[in-house]
Amino acid sequence: MLLVFNIRNFIFLTLAQNKLTILGCGSALPTKQHFPSSQLLEMRGKQYLIDCGEGTQIRMRQMQLRTLRLGHIFISHLHGDHCFGTIGLITSFAMLNRTADLHIHAPAPFEQLMKPLIDFHCHEMPFKVIFHHFDTKTYSLIHSDHSVDVYSLPLNHKVPCAGFLFVEKPKDRHLLPDMLAFYKIPVSQFLKIKQGSDFTSEDGKIIENQLLTKPPAPPVRFAYCADTAYQKKLVELVQGVDLLYHEATFADQDKSRATLTCHSTAGQAATIALQANVKQLIIGHYSARYNSKSELLAQAQAVFANTILGEDMKIYEF
Amino acid sequence: MLLVFNIRNFIFLTLAQNKLTILGCGSALPTKQHFPSSQLLEMRGKQYLIDCGEGTQIRMRQMQLRTLRLGHIFISHLHGDHCFGTIGLITSFAMLNRTADLHIHAPAPFEQLMKPLIDFHCHEMPFKVIFHHFDTKTYSLIHSDHSVDVYSLPLNHKVPCAGFLFVEKPKDRHLLPDMLAFYKIPVSQFLKIKQGSDFTSEDGKIIENQLLTKPPAPPVRFAYCADTAYQKKLVELVQGVDLLYHEATFADQDKSRATLTCHSTAGQAATIALQANVKQLIIGHYSARYNSKSELLAQAQAVFANTILGEDMKIYEF
Repeated sequence: MLLVFNIRNFIFLTLAQNKLTILGCGSALPTKQHFPSSQLLEMRGKQYLIDCGEGTQIRMRQMQLRTLRLGHIFISHLHGDHCFGTIGLITSFAMLNRTADLHIHAPAPFEQLMKPLIDFHCHEMPFKVIFHHFDTKTYSLIHSDHSVDVYSLPLNHKVPCAGFLFVEKPKDRHLLPDMLAFYKIPVSQFLKIKQGSDFTSEDGKIIENQLLTKPPAPPVRFAYCADTAYQKKLVELVQGVDLLYHEATFADQDKSRATLTCHSTAGQAATIALQANVKQLIIGHYSARYNSKSELLAQAQAVFANTILGEDMKIYEF
Repeated sequence: MLLVFNIRNFIFLTLAQNKLTILGCGSALPTKQHFPSSQLLEMRGKQYLIDCGEGTQIRMRQMQLRTLRLGHIFISHLHGDHCFGTIGLITSFAMLNRTADLHIHAPAPFEQLMKPLIDFHCHEMPFKVIFHHFDTKTYSLIHSDHSVDVYSLPLNHKVPCAGFLFVEKPKDRHLLPDMLAFYKIPVSQFLKIKQGSDFTSEDGKIIENQLLTKPPAPPVRFAYCADTAYQKKLVELVQGVDLLYHEATFADQDKSRATLTCHSTAGQAATIALQANVKQLIIGHYSARYNSKSELLAQAQAVFANTILGEDMKIYEF
């Protein structure tokens, strides 16, 4: 019984949990409900910050989030509501004596804008800030680590702007606890077995891996698309993702304003979700003109039923 | 009766109301309760922003403040928790098509840090941002308009830092409604009479001003002192002010830490208030280490009874 408990415990501890925490999903002007754009994505035990609008560090403190596993910030474009929180976050990390490198992936001018601020405000920095530029016009692999690959998604906005596609690295196989107990497999062998090895007992008997495990779920994928006008070519790039965050700055009746400002309507966001056959859509980046979001939700759900509203300080598991 | 009503109405409309709105009174690290430093001061119908930490514009929107009468921002020093909100506020003002000039009073390097950000983020600015440098080491008049004179208060902090003393311009005399009614003074003459003129009736009879008015209250004064170590020489500069905001980053038992970091304890803030014989003290700029502020308040009140706690999004009339 203890063995089984341990096995279940081990499985629980090693199971990947994917979590999106919306820190802010307002647009250019903050409102009573919404801070500017920022999201903390957790995939396979690592944290990634996507956009860093003003107040990002405040939301983190309000939610009492621990960000020890945050190594990378991805900035979609250089409008203030997507990047003005970066310098505050960096100086606070310095005050808290962070030592791990911090990688910032952003369009090229960001480094030039940030460097004088960092030099002035952060003396004796206890960690390195490393800038990586990416091309907002191409679909490219811009980051890869043990947990995910991250691709840029070219968007259509007033300034160079990209979305991001996070693709989980292939997973280990799932252990079958009852079979592990039945064959009395020692815990020390679990990792190898998860990675596909057969087990050889002390008396030389081989237990094939497929008796002890089942295949892993396909890699989880998350796509972040803000800010952008509706563009059909996005559909193939986010095809079938588990979770799509797509901006819905405007209601459908304000479509001409959306077109003019290179933003999307709720219906357009949902059309991308429908055409790309995604599993779930979260809308956000709401214009400050809408007090209630129920109309935006209704308009999106009329096109793609599995739509939910993005809300500040809400956690979405997927 | 109508005349009396009109007179009272007129007096109500022209009475100056002084109001301090604390947008944030946390210190370097924001907390669940506190944003970084920022206060909106209203004196004699004008608005002045004092410090502009990250999230200042967010607090303004949360409180649904209208800032049409805000023409001047005063930045005490260039630590991020006192100035990182400035660029966000400026870009939002631009988006909202503000046209009035915005004056920023700050230590000299601020202009150099802000200019590239403004140039990059604000194309076709509909208003001018005008920087004014002041010397943080001297007590000097740094701004004067129809409503107030503003003086810099040299403080003792790790970087050049000044407090601010706002002194209301001498007020008009108070009208005596019953006497105005008795002498049947036309409303058109009220302004002149408030400013000290006698009244001459149609038949040439002179009614002396002192029959129609009483002397005005002395000019109201507000002092803002953050960030600073305890320094006795502040006492004479803020002598007798109506309202003093003084930082109390630390509790008394953490005095050595306060000294080390050039901040004050609650008891030290109250000692300044006591020695300067101020009317009321508000403490703030609390270190993130204190969840409850009741101990800080008790320590300050033990020295100076008329102390109140600064709280985010609270309005203090004086």
